[in-house]
Amino acid sequence: MSGEALAFLSAAELGRRIARGEVSPVEVVRALLGRIERLDPGFGSFLLVLGDRALEEARAAEAEIAARGPRGPLHGVPVALKDIFDTAGIRTTAGSKILADRVPARDARVVDRLRAAGTVLLGKLAMHEFAYGTTTTNPHRGACRNPWDRAHVPGGSSGGSGAALAAGLAHLSLGTDTGGSIRIPASACGVVGLKPTFGRVSRRGVIPLAWSLDHVGPLARTVEDAALLMNAIAGPDPGDPWCADAPAGDFTRDLERGVRGLTIGVPERYFFEGVARDIGDAVRAAIAVLGREGARPVAADVPHVSEAHTALHAILAAEASAYHAPWLRTRAEDYGEDVRRALELGFFIPAVEYVNARRMQQVVREEFVAALREADVLVAPSLPVTPPAIGEPMSREPEAAWNRLMTPANLSGLPAISLPCGLDGAGMPVGLQIIGRPFDEATVLRVARAFERATDWHERRPPGTE
Amino acid sequence: MSGEALAFLSAAELGRRIARGEVSPVEVVRALLGRIERLDPGFGSFLLVLGDRALEEARAAEAEIAARGPRGPLHGVPVALKDIFDTAGIRTTAGSKILADRVPARDARVVDRLRAAGTVLLGKLAMHEFAYGTTTTNPHRGACRNPWDRAHVPGGSSGGSGAALAAGLAHLSLGTDTGGSIRIPASACGVVGLKPTFGRVSRRGVIPLAWSLDHVGPLARTVEDAALLMNAIAGPDPGDPWCADAPAGDFTRDLERGVRGLTIGVPERYFFEGVARDIGDAVRAAIAVLGREGARPVAADVPHVSEAHTALHAILAAEASAYHAPWLRTRAEDYGEDVRRALELGFFIPAVEYVNARRMQQVVREEFVAALREADVLVAPSLPVTPPAIGEPMSREPEAAWNRLMTPANLSGLPAISLPCGLDGAGMPVGLQIIGRPFDEATVLRVARAFERATDWHERRPPGTE
Repeated sequence: MSGEALAFLSAAELGRRIARGEVSPVEVVRALLGRIERLDPGFGSFLLVLGDRALEEARAAEAEIAARGPRGPLHGVPVALKDIFDTAGIRTTAGSKILADRVPARDARVVDRLRAAGTVLLGKLAMHEFAYGTTTTNPHRGACRNPWDRAHVPGGSSGGSGAALAAGLAHLSLGTDTGGSIRIPASACGVVGLKPTFGRVSRRGVIPLAWSLDHVGPLARTVEDAALLMNAIAGPDPGDPWCADAPAGDFTRDLERGVRGLTIGVPERYFFEGVARDIGDAVRAAIAVLGREGARPVAADVPHVSEAHTALHAILAAEASAYHAPWLRTRAEDYGEDVRRALELGFFIPAVEYVNARRMQQVVREEFVAALREADVLVAPSLPVTPPAIGEPMSREPEAAWNRLMTPANLSGLPAISLPCGLDGAGMPVGLQIIGRPFDEATVLRVARAFERATDWHERRPPGTE
Repeated sequence: MSGEALAFLSAAELGRRIARGEVSPVEVVRALLGRIERLDPGFGSFLLVLGDRALEEARAAEAEIAARGPRGPLHGVPVALKDIFDTAGIRTTAGSKILADRVPARDARVVDRLRAAGTVLLGKLAMHEFAYGTTTTNPHRGACRNPWDRAHVPGGSSGGSGAALAAGLAHLSLGTDTGGSIRIPASACGVVGLKPTFGRVSRRGVIPLAWSLDHVGPLARTVEDAALLMNAIAGPDPGDPWCADAPAGDFTRDLERGVRGLTIGVPERYFFEGVARDIGDAVRAAIAVLGREGARPVAADVPHVSEAHTALHAILAAEASAYHAPWLRTRAEDYGEDVRRALELGFFIPAVEYVNARRMQQVVREEFVAALREADVLVAPSLPVTPPAIGEPMSREPEAAWNRLMTPANLSGLPAISLPCGLDGAGMPVGLQIIGRPFDEATVLRVARAFERATDWHERRPPGTE
């Protein structure tokens, strides 16, 4: 098999072939290392490549599978992680100068779990500084670039994850999503990103942005791969006091059940307003596809959804500034200007505004839950416009913010996925967002999979990634 | 039976006699109405006396018991409620001018539940304005007074509840406790007050002070009566999103099991520092009593407990100001000066301080839970000094605040009771505080009952309440 063919296999298919002994994990890692060396200088998605160490893990996986059989469907499959996840003995920087030399002693819980599942850690990926910057920069290679058009951003903050997956440099990734940071790069890079329900996945050992809003979740190229990652990482963790006790279950079980009999809520107001025409068209076409597959589209509404964005950012900014206060006092010059300015502004938010944002959070959450009594999921665009060019100024005004369709699911804590559903006139990916009931990632994945099965958007490759 | 004898029966005993037909609920209400008319002008504990309406309820209870037997142990027993609980068709003012004419359409959930238990509502009780003032005032009669010495405060904010119970004007009461407001008047008036675990009792229909810290709980004259009130009011309520799903169980079941084999943690640091000598002596004597009853005292420590008070007040002030913001804009002159000033100051608290207070909340809570792994309960004084004279200035400095031994259990959300354990040299009541594990009110009540059974402090009456 060619390196390219190996690189673009789904993780599920790769895992099956590894399990059957048809593909060697070592061969896969070698192929990816070769591709990273050849292609990533153009993308800047990797901050750290674990060449020898990854090969060693691949050899160990191969030997164990030969001796005792595979641990599970991801045994021997390579993952690359946003550099926000602690990796024992491996530099973890959150894309920052402040933590440039930080080497954690312990793995984050989700890294533990990925290791237990037998995955091979290929490297650490570029991200917005502390997940709070405005561009995904790689100090070694400048801005991280979108494989679909290198003049454009890959989205953030998990931009390296989106780019590496789209370019065929890794099979699986994890990101974090506080204001859209998993789903934005998924949409922008034409891959799949799932923000699980708040509390579904442990955040122990994950550098926080805003602890009451941070979510950990999978990025992958197919819905099944995202579900397999969820099986590996989700579930209770006494080490994260915010992690829910609810057992996680099997996220692949209902994947192929289709959408016949399901109701798809379409929240026209807010979610379809101010959206680029190509995107609106692609998402409406996606709803029509789900309709042909047997789902019933219905109108939906979340009355206070337009308040969610501002409320989210008040909470986010205050919590981020509280976390960074000690470094701001001693190392302010080591922050990028955008991050430093945002952190400094956070100190001016009054507690009453934060408290009112929390009250709004409850209102919006209850309204979402009410809307999701009438519908099994809500569908909407992921982003109002496709990825802008690198350096193009981006509005922070709530009504024009790039992440304005993302933040409602952050504030409400509901599970939400973005998966590719088209290309715009300029050939840039369009993302379909599916929002589900609390702790019902299974239905979100099921609807996403039904759409994926009926279309071939997930099979498109960025040009120049052979 | 004399009116006085009826008035000072425990609710449990009164309920048993009513159930057996030995005492008429109508006779009890008449006796209490007479006492209120005669004695309450000196105390000012009632804001509203429901004379005819209470008699009517008593008659209905009597008829129902005669026809179909009692609904339960509190059928026909009179209660009087802090005027913060909504009562359908009955003025509910939160002790304020702002809400002076407010008549709610629905009962608070706990009022519903008390009605379902068959209690008779005798009236509404004086409180600090919006539970945030610094004195319990009765607009009709001036300051509410402590039955043990009318020159002294009854404590707040549920001051009317403490005074009415101590003076034998009601058998049962409910209060709210955000920074000590159930346990302070319980300690100051020599009665029993239980702040349950946060989330144990619904707050629907209770005028909020700070919704992430407000607790509803019983005030009574005996531990068993507090337990019977808990049986009536505790448990899940979908109408209060903060109310826990955990079923409440029977709070009387373990009451008489004694303390043999239990471990009593004594947190000397903070909780016994800066405490008046008579109070320290009384509480140490109480610990010795529990030791003789078979409990094992051990040293305990909550390392960050001294941070709890300031953290609690940052959260409380911000949430209170957020809630009152609309009235402050339009009716600022209708607040008492102390309340208005506190509310205005709340707007200056930065969100970062609020967020740091929340982080401290988690630290303190985890430290309490850790200390309560080594001990079944912690014991400490309720108040550092006995009730000051009315008008005497009270410090708001954290290290001198009257409620500084209360606030740790508010911030951590742990259940805590205050019950009488002595009288100081001036004849004012001393309170013993017992703090328990989350949702383990049963053990708190059990230890309190063991102490009560071994002593007679709960049988002392204020002079002049015959």
